[in-house]
Amino acid sequence: MPAVHGAKGVIAPILTPFTAMLEPDLDRFAAHAKMLLAQGCTALAPFGTTGEANSLSLQERKDLLDGLIVRKIDPAKLIPGTGCCSYAETIELSRHAVERGCAGVMVLPPFYYKGISDDGLFRVFEKIIEGVADPRLRIYLYHIPAVAGVGFSLGLLRQLIEQHGHVVVGIKDSSGDWKNTEAVLDTFPNFLTFSGSEPFLLANLRKGGAGCITATANVNPAPIRALFDSWQSPNADDVQASLTRFRAKFQPAVMIPSLKFALSHYYSDSSWRFVRPPLVELDPEVGKTLIGTLESGG
Amino acid sequence: MPAVHGAKGVIAPILTPFTAMLEPDLDRFAAHAKMLLAQGCTALAPFGTTGEANSLSLQERKDLLDGLIVRKIDPAKLIPGTGCCSYAETIELSRHAVERGCAGVMVLPPFYYKGISDDGLFRVFEKIIEGVADPRLRIYLYHIPAVAGVGFSLGLLRQLIEQHGHVVVGIKDSSGDWKNTEAVLDTFPNFLTFSGSEPFLLANLRKGGAGCITATANVNPAPIRALFDSWQSPNADDVQASLTRFRAKFQPAVMIPSLKFALSHYYSDSSWRFVRPPLVELDPEVGKTLIGTLESGG
Repeated sequence: MPAVHGAKGVIAPILTPFTAMLEPDLDRFAAHAKMLLAQGCTALAPFGTTGEANSLSLQERKDLLDGLIVRKIDPAKLIPGTGCCSYAETIELSRHAVERGCAGVMVLPPFYYKGISDDGLFRVFEKIIEGVADPRLRIYLYHIPAVAGVGFSLGLLRQLIEQHGHVVVGIKDSSGDWKNTEAVLDTFPNFLTFSGSEPFLLANLRKGGAGCITATANVNPAPIRALFDSWQSPNADDVQASLTRFRAKFQPAVMIPSLKFALSHYYSDSSWRFVRPPLVELDPEVGKTLIGTLESGG
Repeated sequence: MPAVHGAKGVIAPILTPFTAMLEPDLDRFAAHAKMLLAQGCTALAPFGTTGEANSLSLQERKDLLDGLIVRKIDPAKLIPGTGCCSYAETIELSRHAVERGCAGVMVLPPFYYKGISDDGLFRVFEKIIEGVADPRLRIYLYHIPAVAGVGFSLGLLRQLIEQHGHVVVGIKDSSGDWKNTEAVLDTFPNFLTFSGSEPFLLANLRKGGAGCITATANVNPAPIRALFDSWQSPNADDVQASLTRFRAKFQPAVMIPSLKFALSHYYSDSSWRFVRPPLVELDPEVGKTLIGTLESGG
């Protein structure tokens, strides 16, 4: 598989395994990380929505990141999520990641208050950049308005890029709205714009985008990477259609429990099914149907 | 003023003052707490939406609570907010509050994931109760769906009260929907049901409710307490109308900056205007108009 330079490619927001007591399970976390990198993920984004980051404590997030690095995962391939409601905590996690040599951090906007202004969000990012106070900091914005309830407008992106473009270098667009991704790509051609799921991967690359950061890379990394490598080939549309069909087997409403159920099947390890509340494990009957669909191909 | 026993009455979700560097300002916090209790608030609920709790770090919240107690605020009059997205952190804050002798804790549901099930939320509260593992724990549920994006259905309340009614003792209903508060009052007559704002105070008390926990108690504590004490008097409707008119001077979209602007006026202390981003300070021109409206009476 050809090397991919810079923060472009297929990035997995890695799932977080738990023990039966719902404590984070570092060994299985690192083993999964190694599998994903071996299967073609160009980097990993621990502590995203898929990774149940907001169901972890700050300390658990630090310990898990340190544990990956101790277990020989290259920090240059890690872009951990660090965005908290409180910028004080975002600073703490981001500084920790930068000090560990991570390639960047993926930052949610503060997501408690709703209907807040672009000005308020801009000030949060100024506080984070000032607070981390490290020239190595690279921020990827995490735009997922349907979950966070707060997002990044084009005007806010412009302000951040114009004033902090050496730090704020990219975005994961998980709006699910291709028109928004296209507008970001058109407006900021040098910004690293990732689609938040692989059904938009080919369209993203054709517009000069950076690739995708997608939950399903946890269970389908090699085929997604194959499209990233061969997007200019004549059959790229067919490959894209196949990826999109695979993704559609996972219902968005239960995406995380479904991905964990699928992994528990692939790894023959039922403890991969554990999720922390407020999420609940996939119903085993629903899971059986899912596995049947996955194994039927198509 | 007559004493009020038990967790009923007029509770202020106390505003959090910051320094010019936006660090929490403990001395002004404690001074404001003393003023509110002296003016008739029956208890204080630090670290609510109004208190910018989610813009504080876990450690800042602990330090502020400890600081109030060191400054002689009776912990039996404190119901701090402790609900985080991660139950691990909710447990940490709740245990801290219980160990300090607080009357209870006010718990937001985990608010990152949306569209989650009652079953998932119930499991979160089981985890919290198990995790704090202290018979002194008393939980007040914080229902504010328009901000949190997650709320408490009647079915979930029933499950919590039936199985953990010795711990889950009350709710702050900040839905702004009187029909919801009324349904809770009708369905669970022994539950401590607080309205989330004082325009519903009289209606709440007439239905046997516990009172109100309201942002505007930060600037109007004595008149709100007066209605709590005299709700059976013949002129109660007039008093309620006056409280409701006062409240209406504060626009919901900028409630917190407006309350801080008003306090900065009352205390002649402009540093009360500071808010942490993503909130932004009230525009001074808008503030002047607000002060004019407040001073005009009516």
